[in-house]
Amino acid sequence: MSSSVRSIRVACCQLHPILGDGRANAERTRDAIKGAVEAGARLIVLPELATTGYVFDSEDQARTAAQESEGALQTWAEEAARGDALVVGGFAELDAAGDLYNAAAVVDASGTLAIYRKTHLWGTERELFTAGEAIPPVVDTRVGPIGVGVCYDMFFPELTRGLALRGAEIIVMPTNAPRGSNGAGVRDNIGVSIARAAAHVNRVFVAVCDRWGSERGVEWVGRSLIADPEGDLIAEPPGDREQVLFADCELALARNKRWAGTSNDAFDDRRPEHYELD
Amino acid sequence: MSSSVRSIRVACCQLHPILGDGRANAERTRDAIKGAVEAGARLIVLPELATTGYVFDSEDQARTAAQESEGALQTWAEEAARGDALVVGGFAELDAAGDLYNAAAVVDASGTLAIYRKTHLWGTERELFTAGEAIPPVVDTRVGPIGVGVCYDMFFPELTRGLALRGAEIIVMPTNAPRGSNGAGVRDNIGVSIARAAAHVNRVFVAVCDRWGSERGVEWVGRSLIADPEGDLIAEPPGDREQVLFADCELALARNKRWAGTSNDAFDDRRPEHYELD
Repeated sequence: MSSSVRSIRVACCQLHPILGDGRANAERTRDAIKGAVEAGARLIVLPELATTGYVFDSEDQARTAAQESEGALQTWAEEAARGDALVVGGFAELDAAGDLYNAAAVVDASGTLAIYRKTHLWGTERELFTAGEAIPPVVDTRVGPIGVGVCYDMFFPELTRGLALRGAEIIVMPTNAPRGSNGAGVRDNIGVSIARAAAHVNRVFVAVCDRWGSERGVEWVGRSLIADPEGDLIAEPPGDREQVLFADCELALARNKRWAGTSNDAFDDRRPEHYELD
Repeated sequence: MSSSVRSIRVACCQLHPILGDGRANAERTRDAIKGAVEAGARLIVLPELATTGYVFDSEDQARTAAQESEGALQTWAEEAARGDALVVGGFAELDAAGDLYNAAAVVDASGTLAIYRKTHLWGTERELFTAGEAIPPVVDTRVGPIGVGVCYDMFFPELTRGLALRGAEIIVMPTNAPRGSNGAGVRDNIGVSIARAAAHVNRVFVAVCDRWGSERGVEWVGRSLIADPEGDLIAEPPGDREQVLFADCELALARNKRWAGTSNDAFDDRRPEHYELD
């Protein structure tokens, strides 16, 4: 990362992917990146499974969709190159062994910097995808160290804590948050509280990029947001439509773990011997 | 705990302690417990340092206040006995060795069941109090297993996670949340997000009992709340006055760690080998 970068513009592109239409989604994500780059964004976040859609009715369909969208990351790199930008977006990854992952790629002009495979799989994802086996990455980039998780991962505060402890200045979360399909457990705004809490207690920026639209009876909440290290929303959950959120983020602020105006430090004050987590 | 208990009434008594007036605070807390018992509460939470106030100007003053309020816990037990209730309240504990702790007591008709000494000390507390050295307790009581923390402890999601993993069905947090004194780091409502997130990701009830009023230029937020295992507020932050919040809580709901309507389990889905917390 460059110490000369004071503030970067972060964009969350709350798109509506089309289930199983790899070509349409490649175009949609490319257009969104293009627009965000033109608006000055240096870090552009796309939803979970932005290249394929989500509600597959079979593993075969998911596999075919993954194959048909394989070129998307290359188009992301090409668009990123126009603005020296980073793109973090969700996609269905089919690896050489034929295993399918719910993954997120970190892409810049040079190509793919990192791929993260979702650690915590939700619902029927477990029938389609293999869970990731690597520690969620903190990717060193020209704009700063970026921590990556996907959707349900955020519901494990240990994961966001780990990313922050390993130096992430911003945690990005490609997300597909379903409305109502899981009953009371996924309310419209509990994700907002969880994201704000993760930002505040870790003193990091958090960017959640949700999707929009519906698929096979599943409606998506549209609760994208960007929070600063205080946990304050600097880009609000738009809800109820496709749109792009922007916020200018001075990522280096996240290196200071003191709560503003105090001598208390969110990391130094930890007492791991008192938590008994395992 | 009794399996015949379906639902219990929880009360958070958002009081205004008087700095250094042990007698007045003993009366105030006793009256609050009496009123809550008469309203049917079985679990009654008081603020942090409810017997002494908070903004001491010296260790001597804190020590004197602790000595003068030593009888308070006995009065809590007497009032609790009238309704077979539990009281969890913050007090300044002076131990036999002469060390001072920012502590919380769990009290019922039989006396003091447990004392917890705050693990994470905030600001000038570090000049007055000794930090606790024990693992925060989950106290087995007639109404269910109660996890205890104090105020700033809540800002460490590992602590609330640990309490939940060790069986707490409700986490109670005697709190003194200052308004503004710590700049942007303590906004009016980030504590609400943190409490809701802790409830949701751990599938437990959370009861935060804040104080009210001001002392020596420090104003207190008054952000008491009770959240259910969805993270929904079932007693809202009242703000801007002394008052008692009530909510009827079926604590046994917190034994089920599945998000409503799903086969995903907040605890079984954890993957500790992926977090790298230390």
